[in-house]
Amino acid sequence: MSKIHNFSAGPAILPQSAIDASIEALKNFSNTGLSLIEISHRSKEYEAVLREACELVKEILNLGNDYDVVFLQGGASLQFDMVPMNLLNENGTACYINSGVWASKAIKEAKYFGNVNVVASSEDKNFSYIPKDYTIPADANYFHCTSNNTIYGTEMFEFPHSPIPMICDMSSDIFSRPFDAGKFSLIYAGAQKNMGPAGTTLVIIKKGLLGKVTRKIPSMLEYKNHIEGESMYNTPSVFAIFVCMHTLRWIKSIGLEAMEARNIEKSNLLYSEIDRNSIFEGTVAIEDRSRMNVNFVLKNKEFEDDFLKLCKQRNLNGLKGHRLVGGLRASLYNALEIESVQALVETMQEFENEKNKSN
Amino acid sequence: MSKIHNFSAGPAILPQSAIDASIEALKNFSNTGLSLIEISHRSKEYEAVLREACELVKEILNLGNDYDVVFLQGGASLQFDMVPMNLLNENGTACYINSGVWASKAIKEAKYFGNVNVVASSEDKNFSYIPKDYTIPADANYFHCTSNNTIYGTEMFEFPHSPIPMICDMSSDIFSRPFDAGKFSLIYAGAQKNMGPAGTTLVIIKKGLLGKVTRKIPSMLEYKNHIEGESMYNTPSVFAIFVCMHTLRWIKSIGLEAMEARNIEKSNLLYSEIDRNSIFEGTVAIEDRSRMNVNFVLKNKEFEDDFLKLCKQRNLNGLKGHRLVGGLRASLYNALEIESVQALVETMQEFENEKNKSN
Repeated sequence: MSKIHNFSAGPAILPQSAIDASIEALKNFSNTGLSLIEISHRSKEYEAVLREACELVKEILNLGNDYDVVFLQGGASLQFDMVPMNLLNENGTACYINSGVWASKAIKEAKYFGNVNVVASSEDKNFSYIPKDYTIPADANYFHCTSNNTIYGTEMFEFPHSPIPMICDMSSDIFSRPFDAGKFSLIYAGAQKNMGPAGTTLVIIKKGLLGKVTRKIPSMLEYKNHIEGESMYNTPSVFAIFVCMHTLRWIKSIGLEAMEARNIEKSNLLYSEIDRNSIFEGTVAIEDRSRMNVNFVLKNKEFEDDFLKLCKQRNLNGLKGHRLVGGLRASLYNALEIESVQALVETMQEFENEKNKSN
Repeated sequence: MSKIHNFSAGPAILPQSAIDASIEALKNFSNTGLSLIEISHRSKEYEAVLREACELVKEILNLGNDYDVVFLQGGASLQFDMVPMNLLNENGTACYINSGVWASKAIKEAKYFGNVNVVASSEDKNFSYIPKDYTIPADANYFHCTSNNTIYGTEMFEFPHSPIPMICDMSSDIFSRPFDAGKFSLIYAGAQKNMGPAGTTLVIIKKGLLGKVTRKIPSMLEYKNHIEGESMYNTPSVFAIFVCMHTLRWIKSIGLEAMEARNIEKSNLLYSEIDRNSIFEGTVAIEDRSRMNVNFVLKNKEFEDDFLKLCKQRNLNGLKGHRLVGGLRASLYNALEIESVQALVETMQEFENEKNKSN
């Protein structure tokens, strides 16, 4: 079978080393003679995996012992609830930036728990840019932003200086570039983009952040319990965390600086072609173009099905835009090689030539 | 490497066919040329997996279209919260049986949401039996029980006739025997015993049960959203559900009647040896002995380490009792073959002979 170029938005392409390690572990995990998926999560072999995954997160992000790292279940979507449940008092206010569908969902959930102040929004232009001029009030409980908007293809390359705890949903661009993680009080990320398979969610919490709300929090939704239980307050998502650990090893071996260079090279290659090619156009403010999710459209929407058909013939997978926005989207996560972007660019050129010929 | 006999309490032994299918799918899922863990959960190939898993649950349990089946995240532990959040009004009362650690946790969580009436408990005798004489009040919101108590090794072989919606945590014995699923309004089960790997939770909900509480429920914790989203309200635990689907195929191929016969044969073999062997004794009321988790102790506790050492030499894995209760526990889930129980029985006999010789 020839190589499939995987542009899926998530679950998404993973490093082959992590997939290979998973296959081996399904056969015989860590020389136990048992499969990874039938061994106790409290076996010493598996506890070592979970511990290494947490340590790698801290090491890659340069975080010290003033941060706790846990792997939870429920995706970033459950974090939309757990964040305000643990941090927003009923009479308190949380500040959010509304930069897309996921940010809107996070806002909707926070409203179940307290007041929400949307300090900035790009909804006026269909979320095609990142809001930049806003003030974060010093008396709110926390400020929440979304670093990369998977559906619209915008990315925050600079974070504000926040006078209150800053919280970020980094599901779709964590580990894609260096950033000052020490500015954040809480970072969360569903694994299924740059970190691993679906089924686990990374949460990084600064010590001292918790314990300030008065509501009674159900045990499974209280961060404190998961921190104290070292991600084993209940049975963790064993397999997914194993794959994350191997993906994190691979990320560490490359390093965030080199990873960013790769991601800049890949995204520049594709955006340049979008700008050059007469058939396509970008949909996002140039300075806010995401390196992870490249959104674009065909100037003549009628050609879209033809183009997607050609992509399929050329083994280019996962290019259809999100059902909410349509168009095309190429996700260029860490593990995607530049050869895949080249293959897409060549197909865009081939399509342009075809269309020019038939005119 | 010689065969390891896997008596782990969960995550636990799975059918080899499901493990083999997972290995193949990690290499090339459903002929897509992509790994199962890097494909979109909304691809038609994966949607077919999720659909088949839900259909198999209904087929195996003989459930009609008056039930919805979803696969969620967060384990049975999150169900301890979701059940009362969705079904218990603040001024209402829920009835629980307290039959062990997990039941106690479920009760603790329900108290966050309303009143709890513990209609029966076996705490007086360290949860060594299943309470049987109790009345379920007709005016409570629901009645909750735990069909199998993994930590103490007791199992409910008969369910009461409940005048109110009956809810059951079947995490550790679902699909181990035929039962009248139509008596229940809601059944939940963490996958990692008889159904699949850790990371997904089955919830079966009778139509018409929901929508009766007045509280506002956060979106991710509201069953209705997951039912409407067909388990894709957010990204599901793709890999874990895939393994469940294959385990369910295997369960269907055997059938619940034959599965029960296997499980009776295995557990009888082990309980008979516990009763015969002069070194060991059971800890549970005979009529309530679980077929899934066989709890026993050494009459002379000082021999315990020696016995566990011998078990290790004989490739018998996972026999140490839960840290809360100590002693020994052999979990005999569906996928465990009788040869493994025979190997354990032989080792118990070998140990008895050794000890008799040295006396």
